[in-house]
Amino acid sequence: MSEVLESPAMRDEDGGFTADYVRAVSAAIEAEDQSRTRALVRDLHEADLADLIELLRADERVRLIELMGRTFDPLTFTELDESIRDELLEALPQQVIASAVRKLDTDDAVYLIGDLDEAEQREILSKVPRADRMALRRALDFPEYTAGRLMQTDFVAVPSFWSVGQTIDYMRTEKELPESFYEIYVVDPTFHLAGALPVSRVLRTPRDSVVSDIMDTADVSFTVADDQEDVAYKFEQYNLVSAPVLDEEGRLVGMLTIDDIVDVIQEEAEEDIHRLGGVGDEEITDPVWRTTRSRFTWLAVNMGTAILASWVISWFDATIDQMVALAILMPIVASMGGNAGTQTMTVAVRALATRDLGPLNAFRVIWRESVVGVINGVLFALIMGVLAILWFGNDGLGLVIGAAMIINMLAAALAGILIPLTLDWFDIDPAISSTVFVTTVTDVIGFFAFLGLAAVWLL
Amino acid sequence: MSEVLESPAMRDEDGGFTADYVRAVSAAIEAEDQSRTRALVRDLHEADLADLIELLRADERVRLIELMGRTFDPLTFTELDESIRDELLEALPQQVIASAVRKLDTDDAVYLIGDLDEAEQREILSKVPRADRMALRRALDFPEYTAGRLMQTDFVAVPSFWSVGQTIDYMRTEKELPESFYEIYVVDPTFHLAGALPVSRVLRTPRDSVVSDIMDTADVSFTVADDQEDVAYKFEQYNLVSAPVLDEEGRLVGMLTIDDIVDVIQEEAEEDIHRLGGVGDEEITDPVWRTTRSRFTWLAVNMGTAILASWVISWFDATIDQMVALAILMPIVASMGGNAGTQTMTVAVRALATRDLGPLNAFRVIWRESVVGVINGVLFALIMGVLAILWFGNDGLGLVIGAAMIINMLAAALAGILIPLTLDWFDIDPAISSTVFVTTVTDVIGFFAFLGLAAVWLL
Repeated sequence: MSEVLESPAMRDEDGGFTADYVRAVSAAIEAEDQSRTRALVRDLHEADLADLIELLRADERVRLIELMGRTFDPLTFTELDESIRDELLEALPQQVIASAVRKLDTDDAVYLIGDLDEAEQREILSKVPRADRMALRRALDFPEYTAGRLMQTDFVAVPSFWSVGQTIDYMRTEKELPESFYEIYVVDPTFHLAGALPVSRVLRTPRDSVVSDIMDTADVSFTVADDQEDVAYKFEQYNLVSAPVLDEEGRLVGMLTIDDIVDVIQEEAEEDIHRLGGVGDEEITDPVWRTTRSRFTWLAVNMGTAILASWVISWFDATIDQMVALAILMPIVASMGGNAGTQTMTVAVRALATRDLGPLNAFRVIWRESVVGVINGVLFALIMGVLAILWFGNDGLGLVIGAAMIINMLAAALAGILIPLTLDWFDIDPAISSTVFVTTVTDVIGFFAFLGLAAVWLL
Repeated sequence: MSEVLESPAMRDEDGGFTADYVRAVSAAIEAEDQSRTRALVRDLHEADLADLIELLRADERVRLIELMGRTFDPLTFTELDESIRDELLEALPQQVIASAVRKLDTDDAVYLIGDLDEAEQREILSKVPRADRMALRRALDFPEYTAGRLMQTDFVAVPSFWSVGQTIDYMRTEKELPESFYEIYVVDPTFHLAGALPVSRVLRTPRDSVVSDIMDTADVSFTVADDQEDVAYKFEQYNLVSAPVLDEEGRLVGMLTIDDIVDVIQEEAEEDIHRLGGVGDEEITDPVWRTTRSRFTWLAVNMGTAILASWVISWFDATIDQMVALAILMPIVASMGGNAGTQTMTVAVRALATRDLGPLNAFRVIWRESVVGVINGVLFALIMGVLAILWFGNDGLGLVIGAAMIINMLAAALAGILIPLTLDWFDIDPAISSTVFVTTVTDVIGFFAFLGLAAVWLL
């Protein structure tokens, strides 16, 4: 019966799923119609299947995977948002997860079960063949966010005295090689790295050439303990497609490929954006309570700084009492400083992350930001001064807001560059805490300069 | 004489250049000491040489390249920040640039001269051999930020009836192939794409196998007009390492490789961070006047919204006159709303960019954000209400600030999600203008709710 149902268009013009398609999948799941469900999702790439799963209700997700049975590609797990992956790992029978782990490459399997607690990991590993279990245990021993965790342990290594012909014949007969690879590594008898050879070069060289004559010295290699951020930096800086990973004794133990590193690059940029915006490692599929709690922390810190700024204002309550115009204008000074500071800080935080800002050009950049701050400060001082005079017909008020604007824009520039530099110096991620420090400085100095000058000059 | 000078350590423990090293390079340039200069920079990868050039003074940069002469790798140009590249293209003799263009692959050459005006491009192209000139002209005809601009026009294409042996022999004899490649494309006699073949699979298959039997159908291909953002999205989504590019008639004309796409991914994330922070496509090496001007625009927009908020405050000048505590507390309400709105907006803007937020889950996300906003609103209403009562000894004031807080946090959540969604709906990049709209909403509603409730309830 299910065959007569027409399949709705899967994609809209932007390439996203259509509402009709998602509804059809939901309906097929609801009806427990296995053949229709499988027919609907059959042609999906695992990354697209993951997107579809994220669009379903929590109970539908589990049932979809159960209905797909053996047709479910375990790589889908690695493409899911973390909170949904965790939810599925909880809900699915351990047998399903163990079978997924068996089918995946080491790096993907480790990624899948890496977040589970140790008891669960042990449980799942016990259902996996011994050889795989050993490799996975070793990989799980490396701390998260290191090259050891990211690498795959399948790679092609040949001795340097082999000919190209021997190398090709070896690859034609050896079954246990990775699905695809871009470099062949050249090792000595103790498995120390001697060089690397792009696969395309092997193809283009006569069979009788000797590997050691055509290989590159491996300029860039990583050790298992290297931080994934450094790995990503070097892949970008040197346009790498794959790179060897060595253990503490310098022996070749794994290979990193660009497709895994692209995810790291994306994650690191995402992390900076989120941290600058005052949210943690949040995903749009996270449950409400987790989101609420993580944002609460940041808002509580911000409330502290807002109260500090209000306390500064309260020193001048008598001044405001005499001239209400001050209360009307004071948010402008603080807001302009906050925005100017955020501009400088954004550029500084990113430049630190991409290593375009460091001790060698710090002074030049501080000077440059100060000049920009003062120039824009003077320009907006003139504009706002004139506007204040026109609005309240009080020349002194124009002078006060102008002077406060210049002071606060300079303070904003200095805070915007010095705070990220200082945090970075102390090895604190500048993205995570610069915003709150910078706006505290610009609020406090903005209110203090404006109300203080008014108290001295106007009253 | 220069040989006796000791070379200082090049790298500090973080992998950056040491100040001593940069000083030694400057001194060698200053002394016009060609052999010492070349010796100091000899082992640098082109990406590191670009970093070094960025650390030098403007006049030193040109002289370094002149002193390096033929040892200067033109790929260095493609690794430089845009403003410094433009400055060097201005300052260097056209002969040097033409020679660089001749040595580079099409995609890199186009990247290098793409920003020059047409007259300069013509001038440089006239110094390039005819065949290269034609290829470059064609590439420059594609608009910026398209697959046509990014692709390289050298690639390997074979007919589907060839054997693996024929394919390998062809690659061994053909000279005009790219330096490295990861896929071979399979085409019919009219150069329409029939499939793709990973290089590692060619290596692992017996010589007598037929290409059509072992090739993949090319699931993902691009056309020359495709936007680079879509290209980057698909490379990430489907873990691609390279992909074919077709012309309007579906003929294979080029190849995209992941190393170029990594730069695009990085640029797009950078752009979002910068735009959210209110700065344009700014680099830390840009000249002061350009930075000042680009930031001025954003600050001017912000001043408009700040004045709007002040105008709202001015409606309540009589209220503030009666109770100065209102002026002291009102920035807290606005600031908390601004931060909560920024949190929601940051997540929404990123989720739109990574296509995790779309029409199919918009309502779920709006609902979720509203719930988070109300919960945090109630929590901070309680905290701030109690604090206001303790600070000013006025129960009514605590009630007013609590109620205003809940209203503004809900408004912040709705603005934070609805504004990016609306901008995206109208095909405006939500990163570029969401911040200003969101903070306008939270300032205006924050001040209006707090002062308005105070006017009604307290006086």
